[in-house]
Amino acid sequence: MKNSIIKPYKKDFSYSYTSGTYATIELLKALPGKVGTIFIHSAFNGSRELETLCLKNKVPVVFDDRPFQRVNQKENSYVLGLFEKYSMRLSSEKPHLVLVNPSDMGNLGTVIRTMAGFGISNLAIIEPAADFWNPKTVRASMGSLFSVNVQEYDSFESYRAEHGSHAVFPFMLDGKLVLKTDNCPKEKLFSLVFGNEATGLPAHFHGAGQSVKLFQSRSIDSFNLAIAAGIGMFIFADTNGIL
Amino acid sequence: MKNSIIKPYKKDFSYSYTSGTYATIELLKALPGKVGTIFIHSAFNGSRELETLCLKNKVPVVFDDRPFQRVNQKENSYVLGLFEKYSMRLSSEKPHLVLVNPSDMGNLGTVIRTMAGFGISNLAIIEPAADFWNPKTVRASMGSLFSVNVQEYDSFESYRAEHGSHAVFPFMLDGKLVLKTDNCPKEKLFSLVFGNEATGLPAHFHGAGQSVKLFQSRSIDSFNLAIAAGIGMFIFADTNGIL
Repeated sequence: MKNSIIKPYKKDFSYSYTSGTYATIELLKALPGKVGTIFIHSAFNGSRELETLCLKNKVPVVFDDRPFQRVNQKENSYVLGLFEKYSMRLSSEKPHLVLVNPSDMGNLGTVIRTMAGFGISNLAIIEPAADFWNPKTVRASMGSLFSVNVQEYDSFESYRAEHGSHAVFPFMLDGKLVLKTDNCPKEKLFSLVFGNEATGLPAHFHGAGQSVKLFQSRSIDSFNLAIAAGIGMFIFADTNGIL
Repeated sequence: MKNSIIKPYKKDFSYSYTSGTYATIELLKALPGKVGTIFIHSAFNGSRELETLCLKNKVPVVFDDRPFQRVNQKENSYVLGLFEKYSMRLSSEKPHLVLVNPSDMGNLGTVIRTMAGFGISNLAIIEPAADFWNPKTVRASMGSLFSVNVQEYDSFESYRAEHGSHAVFPFMLDGKLVLKTDNCPKEKLFSLVFGNEATGLPAHFHGAGQSVKLFQSRSIDSFNLAIAAGIGMFIFADTNGIL
């Protein structure tokens, strides 16, 4: 990675970047060794915490407006943090969230932020899927990506081949157990599985474990993916004493 | 409203529009009398349900690609449904959700969709706030806007002057009751109150009712607004037998 160069992000890059003070601080706190360069725009107001973290970790800081024009982001931000991608592996000792073919980077980032909030910090992504390294995902995660383990698999079967002892709970619109505050299964190791935003999980997931659904009125087809995952995680985390 | 004209939406318009088949069908089902014209793009694949609803309600259908260029939407959609704005009033006999100064139209639409899913169908919005009529909000709501009562107030005090008997639960990062699956207050009429995405509720809301917070780890500052509201609604709706 050439530290002084930044281009509009592409999936095959070996690096990505945070946008905004908050996510950049999270990056510097979690993974200082992965940070290449911090770019600061001339309109930036300053942040004592950001300065301290850069100094402490000897991260190069470049005051230059051009990278901000180059990445051509829609939302204004005055801090960019270039970082090297890295590989992660799911812990087999912890509960997992499994997203099958998630397609929206905003949803994906919001799910990752919610995972960090509930202490469910291992995410399996079944491909094809939205790119979790994309700056849009990183931004929606508010930098929580840097405190969650993410591993991609080419199929649900290859995920299960590695983690076969987790109790599997596929969330489906016709799930057999209607999940409420008082009937959540008690399990030390579980995998909460959610399908694609538009299509949900295929019917054969009924056979993958105890299918569940959220109680909901007939006036909507389904909840937004990030909402459903958030509620599912809340119920399982609370019932199983994860926080 | 001139039925044959459509322009990029502005807040002061007396009309707005749905974008996409799903939201347009929800509009036609809920409020056929408010629909001006349905525009269909030449690339549209057709929808039996949409055709039937237009015929049944004698809604003019115009096959014309130009309106789609004019509104210049980012996401492709091949159906636009022009509708007149209308005024709504909160029911005093039902629980409410109260959003104080929400600023993001995507969040606002997602909250409205979740409300419809949990049967909490009265929303007070304290201004200044994102425009709930904006096509972006309507789209994020997946058309659920048409089955929820929304009323804007210039202050929380003016909301309370109308609805003083609801038990108020402000959601705050330092809320006194940590809300879990088994300790949710039982109330027939309640107002769940959430602050702005970036700033939350001002401290004086501790005095407005029983302040609550969601249990969360220390690795995030807060949950996304739509996630927090979704989890709060789930707990209150389930505990109080709303669905």
